[in-house]
Amino acid sequence: MSKRIGVALLGRGVVGSQVMRLLDEQAADLAARVGAPLELVGVAVRRPQRHKDIPAHLLTTDAESLVTRDDVDIVVEVIGGIEPTRSFLLAAMKAGKSVVTANKALLAEDGATMHAVARETGADLYFEAAVAGAIPLVRPLQESLVGDRVNAVLGIVNGTTNYVLSRMDETGASFGEALEEATALGYAEADPTSDIDGFDAAAKAAILAGLAFHTRVTAADVYREGIADVTAADIASAKSMGCVVKMLAICERTTDADGESVGVRVHPAMIPRSHPLASVNGAFNAVFVRGEASGELMFYGQGAGGAPTASAVLGDLVAVARNRVSRGRGAGESAYADLRIRSMGETQTRYHVSLDVVDRAGVLAAVAHAFAEHDVSISTVRQVGRGEDATLVLVTHVATDAALSRTIDDLRRFDVVREVASVMRVEGET
Amino acid sequence: MSKRIGVALLGRGVVGSQVMRLLDEQAADLAARVGAPLELVGVAVRRPQRHKDIPAHLLTTDAESLVTRDDVDIVVEVIGGIEPTRSFLLAAMKAGKSVVTANKALLAEDGATMHAVARETGADLYFEAAVAGAIPLVRPLQESLVGDRVNAVLGIVNGTTNYVLSRMDETGASFGEALEEATALGYAEADPTSDIDGFDAAAKAAILAGLAFHTRVTAADVYREGIADVTAADIASAKSMGCVVKMLAICERTTDADGESVGVRVHPAMIPRSHPLASVNGAFNAVFVRGEASGELMFYGQGAGGAPTASAVLGDLVAVARNRVSRGRGAGESAYADLRIRSMGETQTRYHVSLDVVDRAGVLAAVAHAFAEHDVSISTVRQVGRGEDATLVLVTHVATDAALSRTIDDLRRFDVVREVASVMRVEGET
Repeated sequence: MSKRIGVALLGRGVVGSQVMRLLDEQAADLAARVGAPLELVGVAVRRPQRHKDIPAHLLTTDAESLVTRDDVDIVVEVIGGIEPTRSFLLAAMKAGKSVVTANKALLAEDGATMHAVARETGADLYFEAAVAGAIPLVRPLQESLVGDRVNAVLGIVNGTTNYVLSRMDETGASFGEALEEATALGYAEADPTSDIDGFDAAAKAAILAGLAFHTRVTAADVYREGIADVTAADIASAKSMGCVVKMLAICERTTDADGESVGVRVHPAMIPRSHPLASVNGAFNAVFVRGEASGELMFYGQGAGGAPTASAVLGDLVAVARNRVSRGRGAGESAYADLRIRSMGETQTRYHVSLDVVDRAGVLAAVAHAFAEHDVSISTVRQVGRGEDATLVLVTHVATDAALSRTIDDLRRFDVVREVASVMRVEGET
Repeated sequence: MSKRIGVALLGRGVVGSQVMRLLDEQAADLAARVGAPLELVGVAVRRPQRHKDIPAHLLTTDAESLVTRDDVDIVVEVIGGIEPTRSFLLAAMKAGKSVVTANKALLAEDGATMHAVARETGADLYFEAAVAGAIPLVRPLQESLVGDRVNAVLGIVNGTTNYVLSRMDETGASFGEALEEATALGYAEADPTSDIDGFDAAAKAAILAGLAFHTRVTAADVYREGIADVTAADIASAKSMGCVVKMLAICERTTDADGESVGVRVHPAMIPRSHPLASVNGAFNAVFVRGEASGELMFYGQGAGGAPTASAVLGDLVAVARNRVSRGRGAGESAYADLRIRSMGETQTRYHVSLDVVDRAGVLAAVAHAFAEHDVSISTVRQVGRGEDATLVLVTHVATDAALSRTIDDLRRFDVVREVASVMRVEGET
């Protein structure tokens, strides 16, 4: 067995605590798998007085010094955030350390710098825990499917929004009521903005798209809509169509006259109840991958939480530790393809449009005309009269987002249209 | 970019043809991902006259010479079988070549020799394609979950038996009728013994158990029952219980007074229709993995077929080619745990027992007594009278296989029991 591998842990919150527990409880197994014992040599925290259960000699508030210490071989980062975390990890790699991180925001915002420094220094930079907790996705995309041509990734990658939408579907609750319940049960954070507005899902989508298509995608490239505007009426309308509303992350590779491009988007959408993602409820995550040769694959499991995320961190930790023992190196970033990012306007999908209209002869003709003018073909129309007004629910065939937007702009100017109550994309049909 | 990597292909059947197609069509992408072009330098076949569409200079009948040729860096094996394939691959590794194989039978029968030679020679031996086609399982178990403690693997890993059982469930057909249909549609081979009798699933189960529990499991360690004895009555009885019959591969790690042990078995079983594996139909495969920290994970996709299997082969090919470029090496076998293999008699599960009995007062009491004598507790009983005889359907609570077998032996000796019509395990409930 080789000499011991020193591990520095940055952050000791929910995930960090579980990482420490597993390092301790499974020490013998981990050592056997690595070929050398893993030894936790330091834990960087902000307030040491809150961590009196840890031996004092392990604790430090000086993460900057810890990551370059001689007795550290691998830095495990579960602090999150962009700075100062990025500086710590860059310093670690420049000092010859391997890095394991669960930091989706950093990789989605500035993966370019992180991967460039990993390449220059020869350091391992592993991040399975950054996407969908314990579900193996990074390694399958980066290695198992590396000989295939992946054309689409479609997934539920945020547990909070999935819980809220599941509850709205099950109970008919409003968004506000369902979010309140999620907060009370601990499924939503005190400030749920990052989840509800889709920032968390967008970061994961950027990372997944980069891996799947061998190109660089940043969080800023991802079209993003949150779920705060999803109404009980949308959920009910989806139900009447045999659909369910899910917050989806969608990564697509398209080839047209201008060559290949990549579109990445995160938004609520209606999918058929028969779709395998429709039955992924509560805090679970699932990701579909469509490869040219592999066909459709699905990966399912717990996408968040201390222990599942720690499972992914430990998997990476063992892998980079093995690499240190064998003096090898894992697969680095593969972003050679340098594909164009498609604008949201170019995206092609179907739409569910709900309009509050005056209940008068000729209204449907006028509305239909607006769609036709922008080449948006209508698949179904349903009119629900209610006194003076009526609700008109239309589902389109496939159209570009730009054409649909122009149609909606026109409709908003119609006197007979009192309100465009909702517009939602319809996905998961082939 | 490094100098080209020479690839030798052994076998050019359904999978080999797809490997050749992908190597050709995706040459530029593969080269970019590896950092060096992959060049097919030889294809070993038995009858060259059947492969006139391939340039003659690539073809050879002399696989033995091909695998050690100087211009070969990686040997891809899709011939199958134990010998002479094993000799070819051992010779290749001893000559410094990396090996990518889809050969589940060889790895399940003699993985020990294969892995030992890989270790001695420092060769990469990759085999993602050996288990469940395109579904990434080997790498997730070997790497993503290597920091976790996997306690169970439960899966549908054979498409032929799954197709036959799905059809029996959908149409009420007998086993013979459903198999005939599967053969006509190409879902079953002309000689379906390996699939129907569970040899194929047992080989995969042995490989999965070894990976999951870091121990050595061979095909001979796997308890195996095929599906030929599953009757339309079993399927109907499962239905009436809200269950469906599936051919399952089950790998379990158990800790008791004697320490840790591993049980691996392949047999038809009833699972609740609400279980995620229940809706995996036709030729699809799915595998559940339960880890201590990760919780439940599921992997789903096409488990067989030329293109899906070739996707897995190409993924391995790119990985070992990258390793050659970087002069590194992938994770080798991890079988340090050396766990005891539990006998089938020690296995604990529930049972569905169907008895043809004489319809007479006191029969149920006698039958119940037989179960009680062997400490097998009964969960439900259903009696269906039919003239002079009756059918008694019992479902037990959890009991050992040995206790259940002794109970059945006793029942067979009862005058009032005309026949033990069927005994089937009930799985997937917690």
